[in-house]
Amino acid sequence: MDEEAINKQAIEAHKRCKGKIEIIPKCPIRSLNDFSIWYTPGVAAVCKKINENEDSVFDYTNKWNSVAIISDGTRVLGLGNIGPKAGIPVMEGKAMLFKYFGGVDAIPICLGTTDKDKIIETVKNLQPSFGGINLEDIEKPKCFEILETLKKEMHIPVFHDDQQGTATVILAGLINAMKVVGKRTDEVSLTMVGAGAAGFKTVEMLIKAGFDPKKIIIADSKGILNQSRDDIKNGKGAYKWEMCIKTNGENREGGVQEALKGSDICIALSKPGPGTIKKEWISKMSDDAIVFPCANPIPEIMPDEAKEAGARIVATGRSDFPNQVNNSIGFPGIFRGVLDVRAKTITDGMCLAVANEIARFAEEKGINEDYIIPNMNEWELYPREAVSIGMEAIKEGLARKKFAKSELYSISLSTIERSRKIVQTMMKNKLVK
Amino acid sequence: MDEEAINKQAIEAHKRCKGKIEIIPKCPIRSLNDFSIWYTPGVAAVCKKINENEDSVFDYTNKWNSVAIISDGTRVLGLGNIGPKAGIPVMEGKAMLFKYFGGVDAIPICLGTTDKDKIIETVKNLQPSFGGINLEDIEKPKCFEILETLKKEMHIPVFHDDQQGTATVILAGLINAMKVVGKRTDEVSLTMVGAGAAGFKTVEMLIKAGFDPKKIIIADSKGILNQSRDDIKNGKGAYKWEMCIKTNGENREGGVQEALKGSDICIALSKPGPGTIKKEWISKMSDDAIVFPCANPIPEIMPDEAKEAGARIVATGRSDFPNQVNNSIGFPGIFRGVLDVRAKTITDGMCLAVANEIARFAEEKGINEDYIIPNMNEWELYPREAVSIGMEAIKEGLARKKFAKSELYSISLSTIERSRKIVQTMMKNKLVK
Repeated sequence: MDEEAINKQAIEAHKRCKGKIEIIPKCPIRSLNDFSIWYTPGVAAVCKKINENEDSVFDYTNKWNSVAIISDGTRVLGLGNIGPKAGIPVMEGKAMLFKYFGGVDAIPICLGTTDKDKIIETVKNLQPSFGGINLEDIEKPKCFEILETLKKEMHIPVFHDDQQGTATVILAGLINAMKVVGKRTDEVSLTMVGAGAAGFKTVEMLIKAGFDPKKIIIADSKGILNQSRDDIKNGKGAYKWEMCIKTNGENREGGVQEALKGSDICIALSKPGPGTIKKEWISKMSDDAIVFPCANPIPEIMPDEAKEAGARIVATGRSDFPNQVNNSIGFPGIFRGVLDVRAKTITDGMCLAVANEIARFAEEKGINEDYIIPNMNEWELYPREAVSIGMEAIKEGLARKKFAKSELYSISLSTIERSRKIVQTMMKNKLVK
Repeated sequence: MDEEAINKQAIEAHKRCKGKIEIIPKCPIRSLNDFSIWYTPGVAAVCKKINENEDSVFDYTNKWNSVAIISDGTRVLGLGNIGPKAGIPVMEGKAMLFKYFGGVDAIPICLGTTDKDKIIETVKNLQPSFGGINLEDIEKPKCFEILETLKKEMHIPVFHDDQQGTATVILAGLINAMKVVGKRTDEVSLTMVGAGAAGFKTVEMLIKAGFDPKKIIIADSKGILNQSRDDIKNGKGAYKWEMCIKTNGENREGGVQEALKGSDICIALSKPGPGTIKKEWISKMSDDAIVFPCANPIPEIMPDEAKEAGARIVATGRSDFPNQVNNSIGFPGIFRGVLDVRAKTITDGMCLAVANEIARFAEEKGINEDYIIPNMNEWELYPREAVSIGMEAIKEGLARKKFAKSELYSISLSTIERSRKIVQTMMKNKLVK
């Protein structure tokens, strides 16, 4: 289907369904008598139980499975600052994926403020009802501070999918891509095109995964980050400085073109192309180059062009090319796992565990140039991610509940299977349009 | 079932279900291709549509049907200030009733702050995602200012069920009770026992419904509100003063006992009894007395005692006696209506319309001493309430969408029927425990 046809169909379908999620009772209602159990007078006994022991709220209410998807609408998809209302369709889409793939109850909350401190305070005020927070489509640089502050000050996992989710999935693809071309993490050189929230977090995660920071070059719209760049020493771009002095060991200067010379890997998380990255630049990379032009909907360079220029493995954000690098294969399983072990937070170590598990899942099926990463059809991936992050949380001492691996797998799996069955049942009974 | 048995069963049932609501996709998911419509890349076209015309958010997202149930846990049931987490079971119960009876998607949001201004700001920040706000179990007097401020400053209906909901349902019962005993609104004298949020709003609504304020006496725990009461001229109780000078035309003094002498009607919204109201006091009321001891779970006086003392009609908050005066017969239909016409607010006039419709519904079935008000089993009441409030909103110029009465009825009815079908389908397919 071409773009115009997809857009037309999307608008019609959204108008028909008037939203993509709904809230339903998940307890039996057989007669009015049941309400004396679920509501007054019986509910008072449950309230008292929680009042006596606050942690039992996870046992008696849906807090254990509830995630708030928080956005202020300042950086929605590639559309920019379109406002909180216009961001709702994306957040509802995420909520739908959360349930379908992860069995997670996620509610879109698009905020009527773009003020950093007010966002932080509002999210903190929501804490009692939720088991996790998923930040989404909030512009940089404030998204960094919002994430860090909330991680420190909240007792439930806070995740910014544009940062940690993207980094996790890219790392997973990269792990397998390097296996296919036979290169080692600690030896490769890498160019990151784009210095936004996703790019920065990805570089941070790559370094934790064993990539050599000195062999990483980051380029923003003004060129390579190096120590002669006065514009990133202060002001709005200052968040880039710390990373600048850690990376680019040769202190290279120039643009993306210069950065890519001899580079083993190019990750682009920048502006939708095509033409942001030129064929001639790719041809100057080293042999067996790995190129991930991830901009949506149009990659920074089209896969066929990158291949013609010598790239051996190409991954994009699109489903109509091989190797789709897509957050949707991450967050539903990530939250399934942290909710099941009642994790207190999500660390980079936990994300690394998920990246490794995603890579392992594909490897077991047999990786090659056109299959370095699983896709959403392979839904068995999600309970495996849940187990990997859950077990890592337990290992790091950040889980409120402990399980054996097989036990956690069966818990996560059954929740996910149930929610797939709900969707099928609703369709079969013509309860969805 | 006795109280202990209900409590035991409630605790077990809540533990088994781990919460009473969940979030599910309401759009078809047949294959991965559908995600290109519901999520990227297609969703971007929908976002752009809303960005071009903000009001279309009601057409393309679930905002049109979403209500946030907001509580800070400071006055939960008769349990008092038990905190936001311990309040969640009540809010989830409400969300369950919202969907089952009203087809409304309501999400419990229990706040981590009890500060009045922070509550106001947080709720305002939630506005973009929701079509309505239901305040719940927030202590007085701050609940008055929170409601009034939010009503003024938000563009969606804000409702405090403990105030407006209670007042609406009590008025409905009273209208029919007076018909049964043959007394007139403008002639009766009335005693309100309890000067909390519910009591105050009920008095306000009764006056708007035509009761003579001079013939209304309000009593709080210190006795009758009258003009010699210095304790309500300033400080925490000052919200009572304005009502005090409007009511109690004879400027009576004393306690509930004195207030009830010769009174036609006694409404009690005070502390759970029994014994708050004594048999001897009821026997001093006028002939054909109407007594609504509404405290839960134990009424201020038990119905059999009130009858023995001469009351002709008794209504309580309990389902095991005739004439249950229960908010649950109100809020689901009230919100169904305001959401369907996209009302901007909920006025007292709109609540009066609902009270009259509830009374009419019971009258059509045939009222008598033991049937002055419908119960939750009579679910056909809810679409009728929706129509009554929706049409009143249209009449008052507060609706964004206009309908003919029959058209609105069929829209409200089909939404409610669908959600009952969902519950039945989930049970039939063993998707609820």
